[in-house]
Amino acid sequence: MNSMYSGKLETLFKRKRMRIGSRIRVTRAGSPRGDKQAYDGLLMPKTDAGDPDSIILKLDSGYNIGLKYHSGMRIDKSRGPSPMAVKEEERFELGRISKKLTKLRFDSRKPPISMISTGGTIASRVDYHTGGVRALEDPREFLHNVPELARTVNIKHIRRPFTKMSEDMDYRDWQEIAKQVARDLNSGMRGVVVTHGTDFLHFTSAALSFMLRNLHKPVVLVGAQRSSDRGSSDAGMNLICSAHVAVGGIAEVGICMHGESADTFCLFNRGTKVRKMHSSRRDAFRPINDLPLARIYPSGKIEILNKNHKKRNDREKVEADTRFEPRVAILKVYPGADPDVIDHYVSRGYRGFVIEASGLGHVPTLSRKPWTKTIKKHVRDGIPFITASQTLYGRIHPHVYSNLRILYREAGAIPGGDILPETAYVKLGWVLGHTKSLEKAREMMLTNYAGEITERSLPGTYLY
Amino acid sequence: MNSMYSGKLETLFKRKRMRIGSRIRVTRAGSPRGDKQAYDGLLMPKTDAGDPDSIILKLDSGYNIGLKYHSGMRIDKSRGPSPMAVKEEERFELGRISKKLTKLRFDSRKPPISMISTGGTIASRVDYHTGGVRALEDPREFLHNVPELARTVNIKHIRRPFTKMSEDMDYRDWQEIAKQVARDLNSGMRGVVVTHGTDFLHFTSAALSFMLRNLHKPVVLVGAQRSSDRGSSDAGMNLICSAHVAVGGIAEVGICMHGESADTFCLFNRGTKVRKMHSSRRDAFRPINDLPLARIYPSGKIEILNKNHKKRNDREKVEADTRFEPRVAILKVYPGADPDVIDHYVSRGYRGFVIEASGLGHVPTLSRKPWTKTIKKHVRDGIPFITASQTLYGRIHPHVYSNLRILYREAGAIPGGDILPETAYVKLGWVLGHTKSLEKAREMMLTNYAGEITERSLPGTYLY
Repeated sequence: MNSMYSGKLETLFKRKRMRIGSRIRVTRAGSPRGDKQAYDGLLMPKTDAGDPDSIILKLDSGYNIGLKYHSGMRIDKSRGPSPMAVKEEERFELGRISKKLTKLRFDSRKPPISMISTGGTIASRVDYHTGGVRALEDPREFLHNVPELARTVNIKHIRRPFTKMSEDMDYRDWQEIAKQVARDLNSGMRGVVVTHGTDFLHFTSAALSFMLRNLHKPVVLVGAQRSSDRGSSDAGMNLICSAHVAVGGIAEVGICMHGESADTFCLFNRGTKVRKMHSSRRDAFRPINDLPLARIYPSGKIEILNKNHKKRNDREKVEADTRFEPRVAILKVYPGADPDVIDHYVSRGYRGFVIEASGLGHVPTLSRKPWTKTIKKHVRDGIPFITASQTLYGRIHPHVYSNLRILYREAGAIPGGDILPETAYVKLGWVLGHTKSLEKAREMMLTNYAGEITERSLPGTYLY
Repeated sequence: MNSMYSGKLETLFKRKRMRIGSRIRVTRAGSPRGDKQAYDGLLMPKTDAGDPDSIILKLDSGYNIGLKYHSGMRIDKSRGPSPMAVKEEERFELGRISKKLTKLRFDSRKPPISMISTGGTIASRVDYHTGGVRALEDPREFLHNVPELARTVNIKHIRRPFTKMSEDMDYRDWQEIAKQVARDLNSGMRGVVVTHGTDFLHFTSAALSFMLRNLHKPVVLVGAQRSSDRGSSDAGMNLICSAHVAVGGIAEVGICMHGESADTFCLFNRGTKVRKMHSSRRDAFRPINDLPLARIYPSGKIEILNKNHKKRNDREKVEADTRFEPRVAILKVYPGADPDVIDHYVSRGYRGFVIEASGLGHVPTLSRKPWTKTIKKHVRDGIPFITASQTLYGRIHPHVYSNLRILYREAGAIPGGDILPETAYVKLGWVLGHTKSLEKAREMMLTNYAGEITERSLPGTYLY
């Protein structure tokens, strides 16, 4: 079969009359939890790099998984229908691409942009030789996937600082991206497109919003909710719209993804006012307490939805101000939540906290475990506590109820206005990277640096 | 002036020619944080119980605040317009009410319900004698506020187990409410209306959903986003709609509040599938991953929006099964989040965790601080970890990506499906109140007890 599977598996497949592309069922039993799990899918060819005892299945969802073979495992022909076949041409697509690539060209008369590829679904393609996912490295591979790009931009180069799922990233990755973006923008690129995993994409967009000072050109973060080997993938349209934004007039950091479920338009949302609100929908990224900056059609038409944005200019030079204090924690209050966890973090050297408060900015106050007392104690020691509402929509009002006055007046918490908890976390780390003074930190947290605080709530922004 | 203010303040007011009802500005300076804060509002009469040196102001928002007088404080006439006057009749309204109440009657031919008043804005009225807020105690006071109630129900009695802001409540309060609800429903009431603060209302609705087994009649939780002394108060309409639901046919626990900003209709949302999504809007409570059970018009018209609900019946008897394990924590993952906090909680005797995971159910896995390792260690010791997505909308998919397979297959976390993090917290506490076995807890967490898990996502539920 020459499938790179182990001899044991090759023999098993042969005995069961299975070949690459057969629809099979793998049942695992005897796990420590005693449950049984069956996977139905197409048997895929195996990578030469991977474990030859791992069976690669292409599930009906379109995703590939690897299942380590062991003796408690049953492998049968699947009785279900076989909704798709692995075609010969698909299996060897990658081989053909590398030959095709030499013929692909970007147009040097189009505006130059750079791409920074950090991992995630968007900048990957399933390798049908290996059953794995590999990152795109050559700008021409993007062009192969999305030939429309050549009509809009000239992708001069792709930087690949690292390849990570976004849930595995942290502030050091944000610093690295910020530096690369600044370098590219200051050396003639019209804009930068950053491809990225979606789970923590809104943290990175907030981080770049604070770290890129005097930004004068667009910085477009983009991801995909469905991998590019699925018919329903949003990667292509998101990339095309991102390219349009990157050469457009909005000099802000933002996220460009599907605006609705269908392939009609994308939204470009401000980097500090956007959040992943759905685990799987293509239109998962929504503006919170703000309007989207623009609606972008794949044709290139850009409708400005929020006039309050910074315009592209040639006067400025962007600066990557990446100082960051990572010893900051997000804490959510809930009924019975114990404020002792603050002491735990402080004893480990933590220097600031974001409290996901309830409603208008409450924490348990006249409860059995009052948070206000613990907060007051640490504020006295110079530690800032900023609140953001766990309702997400709306804003903190520090004066309405007596419990609120205890928290903000007496205990000294900083009311976050209509900032998102995620943005508050990134901002507090960035602020504490710049000052050790509580007073200076308070002043900076109350200052609007990147559209993260709006003074007045705009109509039409709730559940946009 | 006979305002019950201290002699010092009386003299000051007199010198500045201010009287009760004057529009004044109070400026506080020299606070430890060096900021200056001015409050404009109407000078209110003072309670005899409170500190006679605290100035009560009615702010333009309609809320009253108390400001402790000190020498660094400036008190001036406010130059702003005076949008409202405290009318003589308003000031003494309460006195008149007590006389009027004797004339108010519920109609004994209407269906009997009980009310349980737990505090919060909804069941309070500003006392213009005192400038404070006091709870309603006599059913006739509800009738005075909302005379339409008498056309729908006969409120037999109001229980008042405690008076708390919802952010100060915990599981013991849920247990108390559950017991009182069960007693009332089993002794002839057609339904129960529970008035409650809004911030943590959705935690209480989830708790009652699990604790009230074999529920056969409606349990309607209701709050108000604006206090009843404001023209824009939602208290009246929410109460009327709640009364309609309480005598209707849906035998579930739910929250009945404004469906949109205007006074058009309320929504009755399932207690396990609802969340406060805005800090101040009247339509703050939204269904998440589910349709509302019904739309209710103040006229009494009820439109069923979700046919999948339990119907009222006379066969059953509700049981309050209130066992609860409070040593459960909610932990949110974010870039750089340190899993050591789990060890902190375990060392303090915590027995279960809800992880607010990212996207399809991720935690940092191949990161510098992998959560999967710490989770695996504690699962081995019998501690359950359930995930719920921090996107709120959508669901956990435990098999799509390799990081997910590490968390659910190898480390043994329990995928929460489309459960809300808040509901998962309440459910895990309730489940661990019933079993100490990890296997039993896993089985119970994966079982749908109160509509908290839906198998298939309904169309039209995203950002409803």
